[in-house]
Amino acid sequence: MAQHRNRRVILKTRATALPTPELFDIVEDDAPEPGDGEALIHNIYVTADPGMKGWISTAVNYASVETGATMNSFGVGIVVESNSPHLAEGDYVVANTGWQEYSVVTPGPKSVRKVDLADGPLSASLSVLGHSALTAYFGLLHVGQPKAGETVLVSTAAGAVGSAVGQFAKIKGCRTVGIAGGPEKVALCREEFGYDDAIDYKATDDLAAALKEACPEGIDVYYDNVGGDILDTVLSHMNQNGRVTVCGTAATEGWVPPPTGLRFERNVLVNRLRIQGFILFDFQDKYEEALTDIRQWFKEGKINYREDIAEGLANAPAALAGLYQGTNKGRQLIRVRPDPTL
Amino acid sequence: MAQHRNRRVILKTRATALPTPELFDIVEDDAPEPGDGEALIHNIYVTADPGMKGWISTAVNYASVETGATMNSFGVGIVVESNSPHLAEGDYVVANTGWQEYSVVTPGPKSVRKVDLADGPLSASLSVLGHSALTAYFGLLHVGQPKAGETVLVSTAAGAVGSAVGQFAKIKGCRTVGIAGGPEKVALCREEFGYDDAIDYKATDDLAAALKEACPEGIDVYYDNVGGDILDTVLSHMNQNGRVTVCGTAATEGWVPPPTGLRFERNVLVNRLRIQGFILFDFQDKYEEALTDIRQWFKEGKINYREDIAEGLANAPAALAGLYQGTNKGRQLIRVRPDPTL
Repeated sequence: MAQHRNRRVILKTRATALPTPELFDIVEDDAPEPGDGEALIHNIYVTADPGMKGWISTAVNYASVETGATMNSFGVGIVVESNSPHLAEGDYVVANTGWQEYSVVTPGPKSVRKVDLADGPLSASLSVLGHSALTAYFGLLHVGQPKAGETVLVSTAAGAVGSAVGQFAKIKGCRTVGIAGGPEKVALCREEFGYDDAIDYKATDDLAAALKEACPEGIDVYYDNVGGDILDTVLSHMNQNGRVTVCGTAATEGWVPPPTGLRFERNVLVNRLRIQGFILFDFQDKYEEALTDIRQWFKEGKINYREDIAEGLANAPAALAGLYQGTNKGRQLIRVRPDPTL
Repeated sequence: MAQHRNRRVILKTRATALPTPELFDIVEDDAPEPGDGEALIHNIYVTADPGMKGWISTAVNYASVETGATMNSFGVGIVVESNSPHLAEGDYVVANTGWQEYSVVTPGPKSVRKVDLADGPLSASLSVLGHSALTAYFGLLHVGQPKAGETVLVSTAAGAVGSAVGQFAKIKGCRTVGIAGGPEKVALCREEFGYDDAIDYKATDDLAAALKEACPEGIDVYYDNVGGDILDTVLSHMNQNGRVTVCGTAATEGWVPPPTGLRFERNVLVNRLRIQGFILFDFQDKYEEALTDIRQWFKEGKINYREDIAEGLANAPAALAGLYQGTNKGRQLIRVRPDPTL
């Protein structure tokens, strides 16, 4: 077996506020060797996800990364050594790679997904044909459960997840309204992602009035990626039996000390709202079922998407920090090395 | 047809804080006459419900009572005139009577329910065999959906709804923990309503620690009648995939100006919680199905209950105010006139 040197990004310090590049370090050591049943992946793209804020926070999280450990992430790469009957050298796979050049994976239906290049570009396996689309799919269709004719409101509406939510809701016959920050993103919502209307929350000082105008029949489903003040305002404009998918809390910088907001339970009671938290990993059993739908919609040209690709692992921490400043223009990926399929 | 004089309690002023007797007035006029298909009920008991705070508030509600109108409520009485083939003179019925001596009702499967005295005392048709039990049943079993072995936490645990929730959860094989105010109610929880443990929230300055001790395996279902600070604390002790039934907001005195509390969305996201508002009226189609279960459990001696019966319509406003001071000892009813079945 060849011995590979492995550059990887580790978490140096846990975050008490929004992620900054200083929380991370880059180190180089020997790549691990795949054991029996395992395979070694040479990574090509890895992801920066809004949820990572929680993984590296001092507060408890569902996917905490230990200090000194390689930063956790999804990635796509090529199998360069395999001791598993399920993977062959040269296979392209999506896995939980972390921010590093080489990753050892244990193939399994939940841990590794083979990529068919006929479906789309390799990077799309992490965006419109990958986790951001899956997040949109389950959070909207399984948790939010919109019906045709209902109004679906989406925050971070031009983002990787939000833009997929809006387009999936449209496919299901809903009226779609996006909330995004800045005229460029609002234009993307309207022109590229097919929203019926879009609100620039940074340009309005009366979000309630803007919601009433954009959602004249009220809001049936709110797919929320931000929480905070926007969520508080939306909650008082939900229709009876409305549903809120809580997918992200990007608007809140830190949870220590605990931040405050408007009390929510009266709106929940009076309008019989259902507010439900949602994490993609819980739906691993159903990924293939969802991807069958998503690939079909993609082939039919019903889904537009954008990627923002940072160059090199060293830029991964800055790319992550940019997510919370809203500087990324689409699904944030990091190109670990040149894409051999292009 | 005999002409009856009708005393009734009307709403004089809408409430901006907790209900007080001064908001109401008592008036006397001729009882309405039943039209075609209608019946006249001579009321015996009417109810005072925690939800009435919302009905008479200046804030929008699902069941607002207009100023000058008879206070809305459930009641049980005897049919004294009937122009409906569905009701006969002498039938005992539960209906939306309001706080008055005589009520005209239009019989229908959703509006009027006949009472069989063989099931229990007449007053029980408004308590353990009536709306408080139905509220507990649907809010717990349809919304909270506990599984055997799970921990169910209940606020206002010794109250009419709470005590039924605790006992229904026990019947379903759950560990039950009550939150109540004062040693007397905590003793009721343990000794009369079968809770595995009970917390006196007034006697602890560290509810979080008390919850950890009483719920060593965390909380799977929280049946909430109060909201406020207690809800905030409970939310950070819910197990993954926990469910919260929002049935009442008794802890919050008024909603104008909007009160604040801890932000909730992070707990909802990280633990995939489902918070759902619940109003009994939405389940009218299923009342009979639920009452079949409840009557059976009652016959089997599995359900204890308490009633607190105020004498006379003039005491109804004070009885309502007492609910929010926690002075009532069980389901709060008002005896409009002597119970002819006793």
